[in-house]
Amino acid sequence: MSTEMSYTETRRDSVCEGLNTDVTEGPPPLSDEVRNEQDLRLAATYVNDARNGCRGNFKSDPKSVRLYNLYNQPAFFWTSHVAVGVLISLVLFEDPAVPSIRLDYWITMCVELLCVGLIFSRLAHQGVFSSEENFWRSKRRLPFLIILLLTLVDMVLYVILSEIGVTSVRFSRPLRPLLLLCMDRAKQLRAVFKNILLTLPDIITVLTLFLLSVAFFALMALKIFQNRRNLVNYSDGQPYMHNYLDTFFHLYVLVTTANFPDVMMPAFDYNAWFTLFFIIYLIICLYLFMSICLATIYNNFKEHLKEYVEDSVREKQDNLQLAFDILKVETGHGEKLLPKSRWMSLMRTVHPSRLDLEHSLLWDVLANKHTGYISKSEFFHVANLLDIQVLEVKDREPEFQRWFPRCYTSKASRLIRKTVANSCFSRFFRYFIDLAVVANAVCIALDEEDFEWFFMALFVFEILLKFYVFGLKKFFHSAMNMFDFVLIVAALVINVLELAWTSISNQTGALDFLLVLRLLRLVRLVYAIERFRIVLKTISSIGRSLLTYGGVLFVFFYIFAIIGMEAFSGKIIPEPVLANRTQNQPILCGNPKLNGTQFAMNRYCNNNFNDILHSFVVLFELMVVNQWHVLAEGFVAVTHQAARIYFIVYHLLVVILVLNIFSAFILELFMLEYTMSKEPAERRESIIERRITVMGLDEDESTYLNDLENEETDTNIRGGRRPGQSPAMRFRLPRGANKVEELLQKMYEIEREEDKSDV
Amino acid sequence: MSTEMSYTETRRDSVCEGLNTDVTEGPPPLSDEVRNEQDLRLAATYVNDARNGCRGNFKSDPKSVRLYNLYNQPAFFWTSHVAVGVLISLVLFEDPAVPSIRLDYWITMCVELLCVGLIFSRLAHQGVFSSEENFWRSKRRLPFLIILLLTLVDMVLYVILSEIGVTSVRFSRPLRPLLLLCMDRAKQLRAVFKNILLTLPDIITVLTLFLLSVAFFALMALKIFQNRRNLVNYSDGQPYMHNYLDTFFHLYVLVTTANFPDVMMPAFDYNAWFTLFFIIYLIICLYLFMSICLATIYNNFKEHLKEYVEDSVREKQDNLQLAFDILKVETGHGEKLLPKSRWMSLMRTVHPSRLDLEHSLLWDVLANKHTGYISKSEFFHVANLLDIQVLEVKDREPEFQRWFPRCYTSKASRLIRKTVANSCFSRFFRYFIDLAVVANAVCIALDEEDFEWFFMALFVFEILLKFYVFGLKKFFHSAMNMFDFVLIVAALVINVLELAWTSISNQTGALDFLLVLRLLRLVRLVYAIERFRIVLKTISSIGRSLLTYGGVLFVFFYIFAIIGMEAFSGKIIPEPVLANRTQNQPILCGNPKLNGTQFAMNRYCNNNFNDILHSFVVLFELMVVNQWHVLAEGFVAVTHQAARIYFIVYHLLVVILVLNIFSAFILELFMLEYTMSKEPAERRESIIERRITVMGLDEDESTYLNDLENEETDTNIRGGRRPGQSPAMRFRLPRGANKVEELLQKMYEIEREEDKSDV
Repeated sequence: MSTEMSYTETRRDSVCEGLNTDVTEGPPPLSDEVRNEQDLRLAATYVNDARNGCRGNFKSDPKSVRLYNLYNQPAFFWTSHVAVGVLISLVLFEDPAVPSIRLDYWITMCVELLCVGLIFSRLAHQGVFSSEENFWRSKRRLPFLIILLLTLVDMVLYVILSEIGVTSVRFSRPLRPLLLLCMDRAKQLRAVFKNILLTLPDIITVLTLFLLSVAFFALMALKIFQNRRNLVNYSDGQPYMHNYLDTFFHLYVLVTTANFPDVMMPAFDYNAWFTLFFIIYLIICLYLFMSICLATIYNNFKEHLKEYVEDSVREKQDNLQLAFDILKVETGHGEKLLPKSRWMSLMRTVHPSRLDLEHSLLWDVLANKHTGYISKSEFFHVANLLDIQVLEVKDREPEFQRWFPRCYTSKASRLIRKTVANSCFSRFFRYFIDLAVVANAVCIALDEEDFEWFFMALFVFEILLKFYVFGLKKFFHSAMNMFDFVLIVAALVINVLELAWTSISNQTGALDFLLVLRLLRLVRLVYAIERFRIVLKTISSIGRSLLTYGGVLFVFFYIFAIIGMEAFSGKIIPEPVLANRTQNQPILCGNPKLNGTQFAMNRYCNNNFNDILHSFVVLFELMVVNQWHVLAEGFVAVTHQAARIYFIVYHLLVVILVLNIFSAFILELFMLEYTMSKEPAERRESIIERRITVMGLDEDESTYLNDLENEETDTNIRGGRRPGQSPAMRFRLPRGANKVEELLQKMYEIEREEDKSDV
Repeated sequence: MSTEMSYTETRRDSVCEGLNTDVTEGPPPLSDEVRNEQDLRLAATYVNDARNGCRGNFKSDPKSVRLYNLYNQPAFFWTSHVAVGVLISLVLFEDPAVPSIRLDYWITMCVELLCVGLIFSRLAHQGVFSSEENFWRSKRRLPFLIILLLTLVDMVLYVILSEIGVTSVRFSRPLRPLLLLCMDRAKQLRAVFKNILLTLPDIITVLTLFLLSVAFFALMALKIFQNRRNLVNYSDGQPYMHNYLDTFFHLYVLVTTANFPDVMMPAFDYNAWFTLFFIIYLIICLYLFMSICLATIYNNFKEHLKEYVEDSVREKQDNLQLAFDILKVETGHGEKLLPKSRWMSLMRTVHPSRLDLEHSLLWDVLANKHTGYISKSEFFHVANLLDIQVLEVKDREPEFQRWFPRCYTSKASRLIRKTVANSCFSRFFRYFIDLAVVANAVCIALDEEDFEWFFMALFVFEILLKFYVFGLKKFFHSAMNMFDFVLIVAALVINVLELAWTSISNQTGALDFLLVLRLLRLVRLVYAIERFRIVLKTISSIGRSLLTYGGVLFVFFYIFAIIGMEAFSGKIIPEPVLANRTQNQPILCGNPKLNGTQFAMNRYCNNNFNDILHSFVVLFELMVVNQWHVLAEGFVAVTHQAARIYFIVYHLLVVILVLNIFSAFILELFMLEYTMSKEPAERRESIIERRITVMGLDEDESTYLNDLENEETDTNIRGGRRPGQSPAMRFRLPRGANKVEELLQKMYEIEREEDKSDV
């Protein structure tokens, strides 16, 4: 039956074939009733790909599918990721290494070779299950291979050169973080980099114009102050704006505001009206151009974000389409739908560990009540549905209920549970605990250590009470409870250890840690206030994506750190014994060239590129921008004027480009949250969530109290739970869309629905 | 006839009555043919109000209308504005005055009294023509009066107190700039302040959370470094993070990045891992919270901007509705429309100086071709139409054509004109001039003065040629040409003066000015490149609104400057002869309390509050943020710790609030320009502009060449211009919407059209 397709179906299939080869050619014709294992596995693979949001370019023959599933096995997956991680962290041990953990070059070389081999084998694995054209079509395969090959060439060259006594540069090291971009699950990281690349043309226009203005003002400043060469000077007698390149650099630094108002003061002292030059310059180049940079980046970002979400949704649907095409059967009415039997087989393949009951529940949610089948459009929701956590009843029962059922359901216990869960009492209880937290903080601030044990006991009691009433699972579901628990347990452990070994109580490290733990309890208070909670929720919803931007920054930091270490390592050495120095001896950071520089005067000796950790700190300081010109001038003093280029390029790339993209991201996210909150509630939740809510299968705070009351009336018929009232399993719907990705996709779906209703 | 209204008309009218009292009650019933002068004037007043975007709350009786028109007369209008300007600039002369222009207090008092009197009379004028309730309903009347009264009370008090020898503070001075907000045409300024007020609640939530985090981290830092009191110190031996308020202030400054990495260095030198504390702090409080601030402000700004535009459009339509209701007559079909006779009378009242021909042309554009009337919806476009510049043919003829018609139309002349106007040649001509500009700049850079006269001659020749071909009006219509002209003429004048009096050539001020003029020619080059032109056009379209934000900043600067002068004036005195000092003598800025402070070491003596100009420079420096803690600590050293509050409040208000609103404005504008550019061309121009284009009444570049060719073929029939081909008047449509206001209104109209089509 499935070979007889309507014209449109054939066309769509052929499109899919173009994307994923050999879908309909490969498998032999099958009977209607018994789909064989292989087809189910293929469909399950597509469903998993849809859930993971990736497109595995595997051939559809059984062997390739098996290899592809093997490829996605956690063991294989993590091995290659760990290899990349180790490769990247090798920089800690290679020269210039972090002093205490330096390793000889042959050790790091061996580890590097092993890692490259592992990563290469991962790539080879891909090559086996991908068709050749698909393998090379993916834009990240070729750079991936090239980086690996370059690393090998570099290693061989380095070994040869170092054997014949020539010091050489490991040129492949800055390329290492790019391997991160080529990893399978680094989709969002790649998206940000693609976004940066796509934004470049527009931003280059603005930046060129900006640099031209700087050049123009520099020429003006040079000419104006050349005429007053003898009248205007820096306070240390240095000439003021005396050559073009210096003037340009000073004015560039001025845009970052790092040398303001110092760079203006000599002119200001000479004649107050010269401040106008600097004010006009700052208004044009700082306030205007930098705002325009942000606007351009935001504009581009918004557009490309939409494209990215569209691509993600399309990819997901392509995968589900392929799975559906394999599974569908033709019903009496000539429609192609998915019957329950095949659904159950599919689910058993996708989730072999779960119960049939759960698969059946999912079917109830997805399937059309009237036809008893799942249509294609309903099947498209399967990826979202599978991501919703399903709780069994026994998961929802507090542990005490299972362990001591009689005690737990006793009258006294029920009273306690009701009062704790009851909103009115729980509020007073919370206020009391909050008050205790404040009192605790005040005690810490006043160094009153006496009450510490009392507070500790109170907080432990609170947690135990919550354990008893809500059960462990429910308790740990709340991130705030988890946070409390970790703080208290850690503090408890340290306190006990402190009692046991008094030597620890003198170790400041442990004390600091304890202090931070105690103070962190204050975060609870902020969470207790509604207005703040909204902001905090937005921040926590950003959380995961912050990691993506952290990754982007890491790539930039790593590349610049390696280049910086090659150029500047060992040039600046921190002076170890600062206390013993006499007052008159100037600090030189181990390099006489630094004499008289602001760098040495500010005692910036620790800001060096001597190992990767120090390099990261310096790069962070450069990112924060303030005093970056002092840092730059320090490194220029010990090397060459050209070193300024390194610092300017870093500023342009990281501060102007990446940080503005980060700002654009937060802006867009806020606008999104805001737009979503304006949408009516029923549009905000997806179709699946709506169905679950309508069917009463969702689990939330209110269900707990309901259950409590049900229990009270039903104590007699325990064990024989009334059907329908308290279903055996419940979905835990994500309240207030946690992931940005999901938020974006929902947003996109709302827009698409609007577009449809317009047509 | 006009008394018989349909139900809906009545209702709408009554709404309008609610807004503007006594509209339909006042005037006596009139005959259809001859509307009397008074009604026309009332209607014309409404039309003018619609054009100016204001709602004059005047009573509709003839006397009030006449008074209201008098009120809007430029003489009256400017008198009061100048009075406010003088009142505000009095601060230059009052103690602490700019040294060279100090006036005795009785002089400034007399001027102040005069200004207050003038402003008060303006308010009284308003009181005469407004109905009482309307007068008090306007939200700016009461504060206006209160400020004026407070000023009077303050003056009296000050005089009395100074006579009995008590020094007192002029407390009404910081209120002066608020008068600016109450002026009639300061609508946009008021809108921004309203926006700031409306944004406050949301931003306060975020800022509170932010300050709580700072407080939290400060407590942590205090506790951590208290344990190491003897190990961690500043390089000058000062204790590090030793008391809570100092620690809080240091960490607050750290969020502005002004003291980074210096504040971190002692901890870094002690143990590298302490950098983590600062990095985490900066990530949370700087990158996260500051981005969230911007997002919150942007979000609010966008919403309130929309409300503002809606209000403006509604106000305009209310005014036009009132005018239309006065003018309309009922036609045969029972519709209420505006006939041509009344249109002409109205226009003669609105624009008595213009020709009837022009009014007739406007009628042709507005009126419906089929009915021969103007409907209400068409009448709503009248305000926009009147703002489009109308050019008569003689305006468009180059002056040479009028002065020397025979010479101008001769063959040789026509050849020149064709080659200059021709796009291909003109491009080469432009390239040549651009090359000359570059060569000129290079000469300036290399101090080659010899070629200056050659370049000058070339540029003058270019301008003369353009005069000849395009005529003065057309030449000066282009802002770029105007710019060129001003630069060249000014340079020419200075050069000639320089030749005449050699003494000037030694004055560096004149030389500087000349230099700037010469260099500014380089801006032409940027304008020649298409990619840059787009950015520049956006910047120039921002121009006017930048003034609004300049005004907002001015108000804040002024208030803070006055407060600053009261608190800090005379405490820091610049040292006059810096050159004569010996190296060892420390700079103390005339105040021994500054000994050892960074303020004195950085030679910031000129950054003081001794007069309003210096105060503005200091406030600008504080706005740029860098080194603001050094400035703050300087003023704290000469006064009291509490002075920190002044600087923190300034930072919160000006840097976090106002500058972010400015960023939000530029962001929104860019998004707007972008959205507009995506709209199809016919939607981008308003209905009126579309009609003008369709009727061939628009004037642009292409029409010039057309005219030239027409002229060539029609040389025989000069004087008898063919009708229709070259109309006697043309509209000069604003290409690429210059004003932000217009852009916003267009945007809003597009949205409304979409909403309508949805329904």
